[in-house]
This record gives sequence, C-alpha cells and structure tokens, in this order.
Amino acid sequence: MKNTNLNMLNDIKKLYEVQLLNGELEFWLKYGMDPINGGIYTALDEDGSLLDTDKSVWFQGRALWTFCTAYEKYKDPRYLKAAESLIHFIEDYCFDKADGRMYFRVSEDGQPVIKRIRYLFSETFTIIGFATFYRITKKDEYKDKALKLLEFVEYLRTTPGILVPKSMRKSRSFGEPMILLNVLSELRTSIPGKTNWLNDYMDKLLNEVQTYFVKDDLQLVLELCNMDGTVQKDHMEGRLLNPGHAIEGAWFIMNEGVNRGKKDYIDLGLKILNWEWDLGWDEPYGGIIQYRDAFNLSISEYHQDMKFWWPQCEAAIAQLYAYYLTKDESHLHKFLKVNDYIQTRFVDNKNGEWYGYFHRDGTLSTKVKGNMYKGPFHIPRMYMKCIDLIDKIIDTRN
Amino acid sequence: MKNTNLNMLNDIKKLYEVQLLNGELEFWLKYGMDPINGGIYTALDEDGSLLDTDKSVWFQGRALWTFCTAYEKYKDPRYLKAAESLIHFIEDYCFDKADGRMYFRVSEDGQPVIKRIRYLFSETFTIIGFATFYRITKKDEYKDKALKLLEFVEYLRTTPGILVPKSMRKSRSFGEPMILLNVLSELRTSIPGKTNWLNDYMDKLLNEVQTYFVKDDLQLVLELCNMDGTVQKDHMEGRLLNPGHAIEGAWFIMNEGVNRGKKDYIDLGLKILNWEWDLGWDEPYGGIIQYRDAFNLSISEYHQDMKFWWPQCEAAIAQLYAYYLTKDESHLHKFLKVNDYIQTRFVDNKNGEWYGYFHRDGTLSTKVKGNMYKGPFHIPRMYMKCIDLIDKIIDTRN
Repeated sequence: MKNTNLNMLNDIKKLYEVQLLNGELEFWLKYGMDPINGGIYTALDEDGSLLDTDKSVWFQGRALWTFCTAYEKYKDPRYLKAAESLIHFIEDYCFDKADGRMYFRVSEDGQPVIKRIRYLFSETFTIIGFATFYRITKKDEYKDKALKLLEFVEYLRTTPGILVPKSMRKSRSFGEPMILLNVLSELRTSIPGKTNWLNDYMDKLLNEVQTYFVKDDLQLVLELCNMDGTVQKDHMEGRLLNPGHAIEGAWFIMNEGVNRGKKDYIDLGLKILNWEWDLGWDEPYGGIIQYRDAFNLSISEYHQDMKFWWPQCEAAIAQLYAYYLTKDESHLHKFLKVNDYIQTRFVDNKNGEWYGYFHRDGTLSTKVKGNMYKGPFHIPRMYMKCIDLIDKIIDTRN
Repeated sequence: MKNTNLNMLNDIKKLYEVQLLNGELEFWLKYGMDPINGGIYTALDEDGSLLDTDKSVWFQGRALWTFCTAYEKYKDPRYLKAAESLIHFIEDYCFDKADGRMYFRVSEDGQPVIKRIRYLFSETFTIIGFATFYRITKKDEYKDKALKLLEFVEYLRTTPGILVPKSMRKSRSFGEPMILLNVLSELRTSIPGKTNWLNDYMDKLLNEVQTYFVKDDLQLVLELCNMDGTVQKDHMEGRLLNPGHAIEGAWFIMNEGVNRGKKDYIDLGLKILNWEWDLGWDEPYGGIIQYRDAFNLSISEYHQDMKFWWPQCEAAIAQLYAYYLTKDESHLHKFLKVNDYIQTRFVDNKNGEWYGYFHRDGTLSTKVKGNMYKGPFHIPRMYMKCIDLIDKIIDTRN
C-alpha cells in the first residue's frame, strides 16, 4: 500500500475522532439528554434547540447502544451516565405494561403518545441497547432482559394474527432479516455462551436474504417480494429499491464473513455493494440517492431523489470495509468520494451534528438535526466502524 | 373593469376548456379507465403507461364526482359511461361486506389490498360521487345510498372507540370539518329537500373552524390543535401549517358565503386567503409551498418545501373567487401569477395531464402523472370552477 494512502487514512481517522467526540456525542449530551426526566430528546434544530418535546422510543434504545459502545471505546464517564439515564427511561416509561409491547413515541415525562402495533423496531433497538449495556456494566439482569425481549419478539413475529401487515398482499420484506441480523450480531458480541445458536440463526437469515431478495439477473436487492421471491413488478412498492439499505446489508454480510471466516459471505457482500453503489451513487450530483426503481420507471415517493444522511454513512463503512478486505483501490476512491460528499454538505462544524436532508442537487432542504427518525445512531456508528477499519488497514499494511 | 382584463380572462377560459377536455379528461379516459374490470387506474407515468395495477378507492369516488360534473357541463356520453363504470366498480368491490367500511386500495380485479381503519376519506369521496351521479341520472337509489353512507360516516365518527386515532394526545384536526364541508355542499347541490338541515350542519362546522383553527393573533389556520383550540406549540405536528389546504378552505368558505348570502363568511374566506397566500407563496421561486411552521421553525417532513400540484389548483380558484367578489385587482394579479406558475411547469401539453411534484426551485422531481393520491380531481375541479368564475366575472362586468 502506498504511504500516501496510509497517511490520508490516518488523517481521516483523526478527523473522525474529533467529529465523533466533539461534534457528535457532545451535541447529543448537551442538547439531547433530558436532565429532568431522563432519556433523550431527538427533535433538535440546527443549533440544538428543541423542536418537539416528544421522545422517540427507537432512539432511547439506539442512543443507549451508541453511548455504551462509545463508553467501551473512550471510557468517558458521561457516556455511561447517559446510558444509565436512557436505560431507566426505557424501563420506566417505554413499555406498555398491559401487553409487554413497546411504544413508538412518549411525552418528555413518559406518557404514551403513539404505539405502533405492526412493527417491532422499538423492541429490537431496545434489545441491542440492553445487550450493549450488559457488555459494559456486566449487570446480569440486562443480559436476561435482552434475551427475554428477543424471545418476546420471536413470539410476536412468528405467531399468526399478532402483527397484522398493512397490506393484505402477502409479501416478504428485506427489513425483517436485516434488523434481526443486526440484533443477533450485537447479542453475539455482548453475550457469551449463545454463539452456536446465534450463528445458526444468522446462517438461516442470510440464506433467506440470498434465496428471496438478492437478484443476480437484475443485479439488485429487492426491498419487498412475493413469498416465493419473485418481483412484484406490477406494483410501485415491489419495484422500489433502497440502495442505502442494501449497502448497509452488504457490510453486515461482509462483517459476518469476517467473523465466521466464510469467504462466500464476503463475496456476497462485495457483490451487493458493487451493484448497489452503481445503482445508488447519483452522478453528476453525488451522494447515494434515496430510492431507485428496479426497472428504472418513475417513482412516486415524494422524497425519492433526496440525499439523506444515513445512506452516506452506510456507503462510507461498506466501501472502507471492501477496501480492507480486497485491497482494491477503487473501493478506497469510492470511500473518499462519499467522505468528501459528507464533509462538504452534511457535517456542521459550527454547531455540531450533521444536517440530515438535502435535495437531489446537494442544496439543503431542512436544517433539522434530528426528529423521531434521526438521532445518535448511524453517524456515531459510521465514525466508530471507520476508525476501527482504518486501524485494521494500517495494522495490516505496516 | 378594464377590457384588457376581460379579454385576458376570456383567453384563459378558452385555454382551460381545451386543457380540461383534451389534456385532462382525455388522458384519464384513455389511460386510466379499465375496460376489462371497470373502475380507474391512477398510478400512471408521464405518457400514461401503467405504473401500478392497484386501484385507489379514494379515486374511484373522486373520479366519479369528476366525470359526473364534467358530463353535466359538457354532455359527452363517454363521461357518463366512465361514471357508470366507476359506480359499478365501487359497489362491487370497494366495500368490506363484513362491516360496511370501505377499503383504501384494491387490486385491478377488485381484491382488497389495504383497508385503513382510522380514516373515512374512502367513504366521504364515495358520498360525493353517489350524490353527483344521482344529480345527472336522477336514479333515486343513489340519492338514498349517498344519504345512507353519510349516516354511516356520522355513526363512525361520533361513536367512541371506532376510529382510534394514531396519537393518544387528544387533538382536533382541520381536515375533519374541511372534508365534511365539501361533502355537505355537494349533497346540497345534488339532493333537494335537505337544504335546511345541511345549512345548519354547515354553520356548525364553520363555527368549529372559527372557534378552534382560525388564529387571528398569529394570522394563520392551524391544521391540528388541542381540544380547546390552543396551539400544540411544543410539537412539530402542532405547528405544521399547510397553506394549500387552508386556501382550499378559504374558497369553500367564500362559496358558502355566496350561496347563503352571508357577508361574514365571505370576509372570513378572504381573510384566510390573504394570510395563507402571504404564508404559502414562495418567493423567489414561486408556487405555493407544501408546509410552513407556525413559528417559522425548521420543519422535519421530507417534502416540506416541495411544490405539489393541488395547492396551486386551490390558490388559482381562491384568488379568482376573491377577484370576482371584491373586484380588487391584486387578487387578479395573484391568480395570474399562480396560473403562470402552473402553465410553465405543471401542464404537459405533449402527453396531457399535469406533472405533480416539483422541487422547491421549480425543477421536476418525478414524472409520474398519478398514484394513490393524485388522479382526476383537483385539476378538473380547478378548470371547471375557474371557467364558471370567469363566466360570472364577464357577465357581471359587461
């Protein structure tokens, strides 16, 4: 490897550490954490001022994961304190005692506001939060709670009649194996003694992904398909592709290949990444676009051509991962391309945190720094994963 | 009135008739109507090709209203045939026999796909369709069916526990009186013998609008408020304003003032129009913007700064109505401004029908001509209302 590449990556690592610690985590500690009721607000404006006092249950669990993971790496006691605040808020206010399901949104003082009965994301993000909290504190009760909640999620998703889907057209959704892969992988990292069971489960999920969603003839990953894996070609939802989501899947799969020493998983991840980068990278404007149509027909979703923050995060991790695994400089160049797109648009060096929403042409759409769907998760995860990957690249090549 | 204004309005009337008959209704007759199963497809691409075979139940009712109203005015027998196809498709496939509620989406051959239990819009659009079909055919059964469905809607919305709202935070929504005003006004036009009851009901709704949603201190109309009419200022949804929707309300209210000879309604409609035009017209780009925040804070909805087709339609009707009522040329100039914005961007003179979705700066976002939310309703209604208004303006001033 060229020294210039190593030096450049080392500079990016230093930049990412500064942006992670000073720009990202500091912003959420200062403006997000609620010193009165506990938990975190995520609906923040450009300067950190509060746009909505409601709290996202997804982000209580996701921020818990983020602060635990950052604490493990950087040992700042304020991250542990934030994690403790989040875990108490979750346990005190985010479960519906009547049926054990979790809310989607609660008021700042923990009154229920919205409960979504079709989805399990509040529960799955809480599982990764509990598991990671166990990892840093070794408090057994959170290992037990994480595993019990996983069991409950399994019960809910496999018992007919509980999660009634919005559409009566029977379909498979790529989101389901994706979220479970993430949850299981976090459990395996945090909770020893379950490895074989978790490995088998992940193999089953990856088999599902390959059988139903990965389409070699079309060179893409479906978000939604018929039960037999065929494309719902007569329906807009059936053709709707989400390149950022598939790219996130690509690095999950590469990561599983590395963890398990399975070259076929690494090859699958690389194949998906190459397809979806070509599909999603939006020349001449730059950035990973929100949606594409599998047959390149017109798309109806209003935000279809916007540039959101998280697909850029996933693309940065995946290209750097691919470079680490293959030593192929084309992946390094793509990583640098998306890094440049991020640094020149998304990062707010003045106020901290990233903007989240740009028009197709790269002009800013809204100044919000967070809402019920944007908070401290994808960005700190990107920084931490990329820092680890750069360390590995430098270690291997020196 | 100046002759130049009259001549110009007469030219616009001629243009609108050509665009209505050749560009709009012809497009939907040719590409939308399903000659095999009956009913209408609305998910059409730029050239009329089909993007999704599912059918929107909203648009079976709305297109029924459109073709009946156009038949009444232009007596083209193909419009009556389309209306008959729509009414049969609605009656055969759009109701859930189990509980009498209507679906939201069905397959092309009428299999249920989505049923939304929180909302009544499928039912309300069917009421206006049935009532208008009765008006042009004088078939008594559709008068009875319209009134029976209204009774059912009243039962659903006033019986606690049936329409469980998404949020547990008790709120009033401007959409509820708005849709009912539209339904009742169509019923009054179509079905004689109910006038007093309908007038009283509309007065009650307009009182509700003034009491809870029209805010003189802020000079705006709320979309959502607390039960006592106060602003939910700590919540993004509570501050979210929809100028196109309020402008639609403004001309409904002016229209009610004219029908009933009530100057206070006319004044209320004009006041709302002036506030909301100033709020919604987006200089320097032009067009009515999708959303604003009541306190001018950052907005989180992804499409918040886009230019959709229907707010432009509502603004054109409202400004022309205001000009007719006040003779104030500033309203004429605003009508011409929005007409120019429409003609230079939305109207597709080559393929027919309008594009629907533009970025803030007026560049096209997607080429779709329709989907589950865009079909033959706002645009033909705009053309027909504006043609009537121009006739009235010319009659009055000659």
